[in-house]
Amino acid sequence: MDRVYYPKNVTVWEVLPRDGFQMEHNWIPTEDKITIIRKLAKTGIKNIEVTSFVHPKAIPQLKDAEEVVKGVQNLEEVSFRALVPNLKGAERAIFAGVKKLKLLLSSTDSHSLNNSNCTVKVAQENLLPIVELANNKGVEISGSLTVAFGCPYEGKVTIDKIIPLIEKYKEMGIKEVSLADTTGMGNPAQVYEMLGALKKVFPDFNFSLHLHNTRGMAFANLLAGLSQGVTSIDSSTSGLGGCPYAPNAAGNIATEDVVHSLHEMNIRTDIDLDELMVVARDVASYFGRDGGSFLLKAGQNKDLHQKPKKQVKLGK
Amino acid sequence: MDRVYYPKNVTVWEVLPRDGFQMEHNWIPTEDKITIIRKLAKTGIKNIEVTSFVHPKAIPQLKDAEEVVKGVQNLEEVSFRALVPNLKGAERAIFAGVKKLKLLLSSTDSHSLNNSNCTVKVAQENLLPIVELANNKGVEISGSLTVAFGCPYEGKVTIDKIIPLIEKYKEMGIKEVSLADTTGMGNPAQVYEMLGALKKVFPDFNFSLHLHNTRGMAFANLLAGLSQGVTSIDSSTSGLGGCPYAPNAAGNIATEDVVHSLHEMNIRTDIDLDELMVVARDVASYFGRDGGSFLLKAGQNKDLHQKPKKQVKLGK
Repeated sequence: MDRVYYPKNVTVWEVLPRDGFQMEHNWIPTEDKITIIRKLAKTGIKNIEVTSFVHPKAIPQLKDAEEVVKGVQNLEEVSFRALVPNLKGAERAIFAGVKKLKLLLSSTDSHSLNNSNCTVKVAQENLLPIVELANNKGVEISGSLTVAFGCPYEGKVTIDKIIPLIEKYKEMGIKEVSLADTTGMGNPAQVYEMLGALKKVFPDFNFSLHLHNTRGMAFANLLAGLSQGVTSIDSSTSGLGGCPYAPNAAGNIATEDVVHSLHEMNIRTDIDLDELMVVARDVASYFGRDGGSFLLKAGQNKDLHQKPKKQVKLGK
Repeated sequence: MDRVYYPKNVTVWEVLPRDGFQMEHNWIPTEDKITIIRKLAKTGIKNIEVTSFVHPKAIPQLKDAEEVVKGVQNLEEVSFRALVPNLKGAERAIFAGVKKLKLLLSSTDSHSLNNSNCTVKVAQENLLPIVELANNKGVEISGSLTVAFGCPYEGKVTIDKIIPLIEKYKEMGIKEVSLADTTGMGNPAQVYEMLGALKKVFPDFNFSLHLHNTRGMAFANLLAGLSQGVTSIDSSTSGLGGCPYAPNAAGNIATEDVVHSLHEMNIRTDIDLDELMVVARDVASYFGRDGGSFLLKAGQNKDLHQKPKKQVKLGK
């Protein structure tokens, strides 16, 4: 092998307001949610997963989805998408003015049964009326596959399992799918092979990666994806947004860590890292912790120390 | 690019007894050091950096270097090496029966001045009598370059700076060099390019990587190295062994995380991960913390949860 090729630009989808906030037990006032989203947007982040239109009893923290969307809709330079776990959520999201929906589908029956109380097949059928509604209303839709690399109940998820699930999305007219390593079980060789195979079978699809750093492999998995042409990834400022199966483990890959690493590799994100660090610190301070951000502890590479004074010393 | 090639086997050099222990302020009794090293050896780890023969006033924690070496020398299946920062240390190490020395050299003058109170050039001259002694005594020598990818005082370290330093090692007859990302500033593109260039200029050298996960890139850097033919890496069980420039940041890449990730990628290490997890837990419990181990918080991929019971539910 002579050379690994990485893209010149990567699009970051910020998921803190959905994946991060939904894990918080203490109520975050709506105006605080809006303030954080506005701060994130000011750093140059152009894509934000703003909330989830989930049943208020399932995730009370996100019961203010409509108000949050309303509170940020004048940020015209930002694309917002919202997660919709069912038809009712899609109706609410569209009524609230969301222009892009993200559908939710598990890659395994066990995870689907646990999360949505139905098999993958039934879950797929439940997506059809959402797609129909969105098409009628002229709203964009993207798909997702959770536990796409490993399932905490069933173990490794193989390419053979994923291809028919993407095929089904294709039948629905969806060509943008986020592959989520929900519990951080994927490894770079697997991500590389999976994305390589998908690229061949679905050449006109836009695959993005949603990675959790549960077992320390998230950034390596990201690189494996980038080298297969992925140019869009999900991350959460400060790393908040964990994995319910490993409560103390690291959460989402942190946006500041991703942006720092990409910039060090001369890959553009159009995000101002200095500004983002300020927001990441604010977020960690607001919640009293971060979700495994490296940069919040170590600082950027460019934060150099003062050079030691030269000593006058001869060899031994 | 069609395929990234990784080696089939990777050699792990366990550095907890040196890099981890030296950062601990509280005295670790010699018998506890020996017990931990023996436990590590039982997991199948075949290469251990056992201590540093540094001046007792510089690092009091390692003042028992001779006794530690004596206490583990009947572990015949394990290769031990010791760090020697100067001629006196080398004399002590050889007298204690160490069969392999690791030399210490900074890649930048600023770091060298701070660590060894002399420039890189003077430090290189100071290595010559150590090499002569080791050759006379028939003791193996390996070299190292600290801050080989980035220096906390000078920033990014370029290939142009590293090549003459390796050239000097070559003149001394040393063909095994550990490249250390001492403060976690390297990025995978840089590691990939650096190792690619070094492989061309020094085709008969054995380069290994010593990575700190300060900014979350260690495992990605390891993979970049592996894809350039590196087959030997340093890691520390439980991740202990930090970076004095970022006291709260993640430390050495943890042996259990490395082994887990490599095994998931079907790369052999000949280490029993289940046994190693027990030792890692013991170590973290002994020191009251770990140094950023992911697996100690999240468990292995194979630690699956019980499958949820199938619900009888029809799609609407």
